[in-house]
Amino acid sequence: MQSFNSSLLENAVEQLSKLPGIGRKTALRLALHLLRRDEEEAVALGEAVIALRKNICYCSRCHNISETEVCPICSDPRRDSHVVCVVENVKDVITIESTHQHSGLYHVLGGLISPLDGISPADLEIESLVKRVTDDNLKEVILALSPTIEGDTTNFYIYRKLADLPVEVTMLARGISIGNELEYTDELTLGKSIQNRVLFSSTFPKR
Amino acid sequence: MQSFNSSLLENAVEQLSKLPGIGRKTALRLALHLLRRDEEEAVALGEAVIALRKNICYCSRCHNISETEVCPICSDPRRDSHVVCVVENVKDVITIESTHQHSGLYHVLGGLISPLDGISPADLEIESLVKRVTDDNLKEVILALSPTIEGDTTNFYIYRKLADLPVEVTMLARGISIGNELEYTDELTLGKSIQNRVLFSSTFPKR
Repeated sequence: MQSFNSSLLENAVEQLSKLPGIGRKTALRLALHLLRRDEEEAVALGEAVIALRKNICYCSRCHNISETEVCPICSDPRRDSHVVCVVENVKDVITIESTHQHSGLYHVLGGLISPLDGISPADLEIESLVKRVTDDNLKEVILALSPTIEGDTTNFYIYRKLADLPVEVTMLARGISIGNELEYTDELTLGKSIQNRVLFSSTFPKR
Repeated sequence: MQSFNSSLLENAVEQLSKLPGIGRKTALRLALHLLRRDEEEAVALGEAVIALRKNICYCSRCHNISETEVCPICSDPRRDSHVVCVVENVKDVITIESTHQHSGLYHVLGGLISPLDGISPADLEIESLVKRVTDDNLKEVILALSPTIEGDTTNFYIYRKLADLPVEVTMLARGISIGNELEYTDELTLGKSIQNRVLFSSTFPKR
């Protein structure tokens, strides 16, 4: 353990090294970088981190992060409030928003069912989703979870929960990734993409 | 550019991504990590960063970072105040301290002479070093700069500046790195290590 001869530096390095993927060496580099910059820059960083954690809450409807009780997406009248996209976490909302292909709302589960990690359906926002389907009279629930064992388990659990309700449950298409060489696509994905093949003419832009 | 639907998150990501080696994707991951942790942790990080930049100053003698006017190393009576190790920056002090082989003081230059980057001797703490040699009656100045063009230029400049003063100017030994295969050592370093070979018996611990 290196000694820094300064408790301020020691403390900053210790706090920075708690961040994921940042060890003590990187933390020291970041701290020394901050020392070289203008004071305002370090203060702005510190205050942004504090404000982020203190002032952000979760949307009471979709459980996405929000600065208000209902998030801007849920309260946007231009969005289709009868279509809800189910995602694992906050980051997935940002990722799907960046595609500009989903004009409905979201529902953030807060994780995936994973018995090995001790995460059961009760730990996730699944009951609130079922309630929302009835209360908000949803027409479609789009399952947009990762194509992993945990994601598929969660997909199936939600599908069963919604089976008796008058709502359409869809999921993201699985197939070959755009830009990838066919040669390097795994057999399972390639097999799925053959099963789920679509009419070539359906890919033309609609007039 | 992804939209985050939250100015707090946007601001935190922007501030975090100003740190070296941290892009917007990593910054988002760090911010979302902070949101998942206890509030105290985020506040501790923010406050540590602010306190670091606001309260740290530079030692008036050696220019190392310090929380007091003279740093703990310079004011430690057990250290040899007649031997000063010249280093490029604050990090090098920490690195050399971790070897426990230097019991004297330091002098932090704040960089190396580099005409290409527009860094001239006047930008560095060289005049203050020359003054210190006389004022503090130094016996030895150890040049501990990186073995690069810039380091060697700075070494030579300092050596010339101190040539007429009654002080011994030494530099770190250059040779093969411990643990490295001889096969992969570059010729220049290997050549130096032959020129500067030492008596094998001198490596035995002294009684």
